[in-house]
This record gives sequence, C-alpha cells and structure tokens, in this order.
Amino acid sequence: MTASELNLEIRKKKSFLCVGLDIDITRIPAHLHKEPNPVFSFNRAIIDATADLAVAYKPNLAFYESMGTPGMQQLEMTVDYIRSKDPNLFIIADAKRGDIGNTAEQYAKAFFIHYDFDAITLSPYMGRDSIEPFLQFQGKWAIVLALTSNVGASDFQLLNVNQDQPLYEHVLMQAVSWGTTDNLMFVVGATRPEYFHNIRRIAPEHFLLVPGIGAQGGSLDMVVDHAKSSGGGLLINNSRGILYAGNGLDFAEKARKAALEMRAGFKL
Amino acid sequence: MTASELNLEIRKKKSFLCVGLDIDITRIPAHLHKEPNPVFSFNRAIIDATADLAVAYKPNLAFYESMGTPGMQQLEMTVDYIRSKDPNLFIIADAKRGDIGNTAEQYAKAFFIHYDFDAITLSPYMGRDSIEPFLQFQGKWAIVLALTSNVGASDFQLLNVNQDQPLYEHVLMQAVSWGTTDNLMFVVGATRPEYFHNIRRIAPEHFLLVPGIGAQGGSLDMVVDHAKSSGGGLLINNSRGILYAGNGLDFAEKARKAALEMRAGFKL
Repeated sequence: MTASELNLEIRKKKSFLCVGLDIDITRIPAHLHKEPNPVFSFNRAIIDATADLAVAYKPNLAFYESMGTPGMQQLEMTVDYIRSKDPNLFIIADAKRGDIGNTAEQYAKAFFIHYDFDAITLSPYMGRDSIEPFLQFQGKWAIVLALTSNVGASDFQLLNVNQDQPLYEHVLMQAVSWGTTDNLMFVVGATRPEYFHNIRRIAPEHFLLVPGIGAQGGSLDMVVDHAKSSGGGLLINNSRGILYAGNGLDFAEKARKAALEMRAGFKL
Repeated sequence: MTASELNLEIRKKKSFLCVGLDIDITRIPAHLHKEPNPVFSFNRAIIDATADLAVAYKPNLAFYESMGTPGMQQLEMTVDYIRSKDPNLFIIADAKRGDIGNTAEQYAKAFFIHYDFDAITLSPYMGRDSIEPFLQFQGKWAIVLALTSNVGASDFQLLNVNQDQPLYEHVLMQAVSWGTTDNLMFVVGATRPEYFHNIRRIAPEHFLLVPGIGAQGGSLDMVVDHAKSSGGGLLINNSRGILYAGNGLDFAEKARKAALEMRAGFKL
C-alpha cells in the first residue's frame, strides 16, 4: 500500500483510527473462554464492529507470543480475517524488532511474507543495517520508533546528542534518508505533544503512528491539531480504550461506540 | 541461575562458549529435510555434539518466527531438549525486544514461563520501564544491548551525549542501576574491542554476552584478553562458524571440531 492509498482510505472513512489488538486473555469477556480460539473470536467481533471506522489494525506480538503456538495460530487467523474483511485495511505487526542484517531479513520474511502484514514496528538502536532489509519489500513499511509514549522514553530518546539535538531527532533525521514516504513511518507518542512541531519540521510528510491516547493519557485534540501532514499522514492508535470498553455480552457494541467517539474527535 | 553458578559452569567446562542457534533452513544439510522437524533435528545434533563444550545456547527468534507455527514448535522442542540434556545449560532467547510496561510483562511471561528461557536480549531505546518487568523473575536475566557488533552500531550507539559520553556508555551507566549482577547482562560486540576497557570500567562484574566472533570478523583473542571480569563474566557467541562448519552427513562432527577449536582460544 502506498502513502496516497492510505491517505485516501483515511479521507473515505474520515478516520485516522488504528485499533491495537493487544489481547490480554484475562480481560476478554467470560463467555468467549468457552470458544476453541477465544482470542480470535474476540478479535473477529472487534473487527466486525470497527472495520468501517478504522483504517488500520495493530496486533502487538507480545500478547500472542505469550500464549505460545495457539497464540501465534490465532494471530495468523486474525491477520487473514482482516484481509478478507477489507483488503484496504492496513495491518501492522507491533513487534519493535531490531537486529543485524541477516536476522532482520528473517524477520522481514516472517512478517511480510509468512504473516502478510503491511508494516512492522522497529527499534532504531542498532542503526541503518537493522532497518534496511525491511525497506526492500514493495508496498511494505518499516515503522521506526522515534519518540515513544512511555515514561522511559526520557531515559535515552530525549538525551542531547551533538549540538543540543535530542536523540529522537537524530533518529528521525538519519532515518528519513534510509527510505521514502512510501515505505517508512515513525512512532511518535501522543503523550509528548510538545515535540510534534520539531518532528514535523524533520519529517513533514511521513506517516506517524501515534500510540498513547486513552489508557496512557495522551490528548487526541493535541495530536489532531499538531501532528497531521498536508495529506493526512496519521495513524492514531487506541488499544485498551476500544477493546475493553465493555466486558459483557455487548463488548463489541461498546467497542464500536468507543471507536465512533474517537472518530468524531478526528475532525475529518 | 545466578552469576556465581554460571561462572562455576564456565570454570568446570573451561568454556565461555554460547552456541547461537540461528537456523537458516536453506543452510542445513540436505538429508535432514526429509525429517518431520528438520530444524529441531539439526539443533538436537548440534546440541549433542557441543553440550559438554558450551555453557549456553542462544536461539535467535527471527529464524523460528520466519517459519510460522512449525518454527515456534521446533523452538519449544529445542529449549526442552537443552533443558533435558543438562539443566545447568543457560538458554538465551535472542529476541531484542523492548516495549512499554504492560507489553514487556507479556514478553517476560512468554519467554520465561511459556518457553522457560533463562534470559532474553532487550533493546534499551524505550528506557527503564521497558526493561524492569524482566527483572522481576527469580533466577532469570535481562540482557540489554549496549554496543552491538554490526556496522549500524555507529549510527546512534557511538553518538556523544552529554559531556562527550557515547550513548552506549550512558545506557550502561543507567542500566546498571536497574538490576544486579545476578539479573542483568549486556551485549557488547566483539567487533569493537577498543571499547572493552570503558565498558569494564562502568560494569566491572556484569556478565557480557559477546557476539561478532567468526562470520562478523571479531577477534577472539581481543575479547578474551580484554573483556573478562574477575570471576569470568563472559558468554562468547558463535553461530554460523559452528552451525555451518560442515554441511554433509558429518555436520555435527565438524561443529564439534569448530567448538573445540574455539574453546582452545578461551585460555581457561
């Protein structure tokens, strides 16, 4: 998928919404535990309830890996289900990988070919050769962590390197030269809106994947007002605020309501 | 496992050897492809041939994930096999994860409980709260990337932050305060031996996991002479140099020969 195609979906659906599928088995409604694949059943209901309101889904790999083989099988079923539901939905593997070249190639094959994800999140710590193998796949994307939404982001990402330039800016400046606006995005947390201006100065047209709305406390208004590019260029993630909006028989209906409320805030 | 216990194994076996199980299915001997679980069959033969010469094994998750569910099943079989072979072998998940707290908890559960690894490699980019959940498990270890062995390490890890202190030193200095010498190690590549002195100044007694010998060009002599702690404190990894020492029917014998040669270089 190209950036233009993704921006077109955003305009058609009037939505920047990315639904984070971070499924904690202990938090899904009790009645689903009787199903053979409870996590997939939960995801399918969430997808059915939100597919016309979201442009992207983002399963976080940790939650599937922690269940072992059955978890990974339900991840595959989930990706396949999203694909069959609407081929224009953008599917992100939230994996935050980052390794040397020959390993990166294996991860790229795993996520882009075996699982058919559109994109994968990557940590920049190991530098250019840990990212480049992901940029070799037509229509696929690397999403590089720049400034994350968690407290620990200030431990290293905000340290000044060279002439008073924080590390995350240096990551952005270097990384924009590694790929294009059609294969490279950045993760920028909603919890640090004071940095959006600097980020857009360095990467005015790149897509930004923005976590941190909802449970982590980021403001949707701040993101929408300050992080958009001219074409749109935002995927705004919400995981827990949608997934666990309800936990009874009507959990999918509640999830839809939460997604609708969020979409209203996009001002599109 | 504690640091003392691991150092004791090192002295008993006269070996710092960690065998990296980075199994590229296209590189394993042809005759194994007829087996139902070729990667596991390959690993089992490598483990049988090297278990008395190695103190640790390090499967790289990328190579298993790229095969989907059958890959992850063979990873489980491999970890179980190492455990049954010798309970004192140290098993590292080379996963280079790093995510926000609630996700980190899921990864910790996945690797320490579901798979029963002793340790996991982690990227420090997201800071303290992305590492701490891994330090809560008795006898288990977080292995934080400090200075990696690849070319891209110089993109960010060697940048000067604050008063002319490279980022990797800052990572070391902060991270040593997060855990103890019994639950925290660091990855330091063999390809940058000129930095060992600084690293040992900051973390004199922490275990270092050292990749980069062999295919990546690091010198074993330099590592052994300059990176040891007073108690030992080294796990020196070799993956391709052992796994693919041969590729015929005698591959395991060739792997043992390569491991023996490496052990001779440890000067223990």
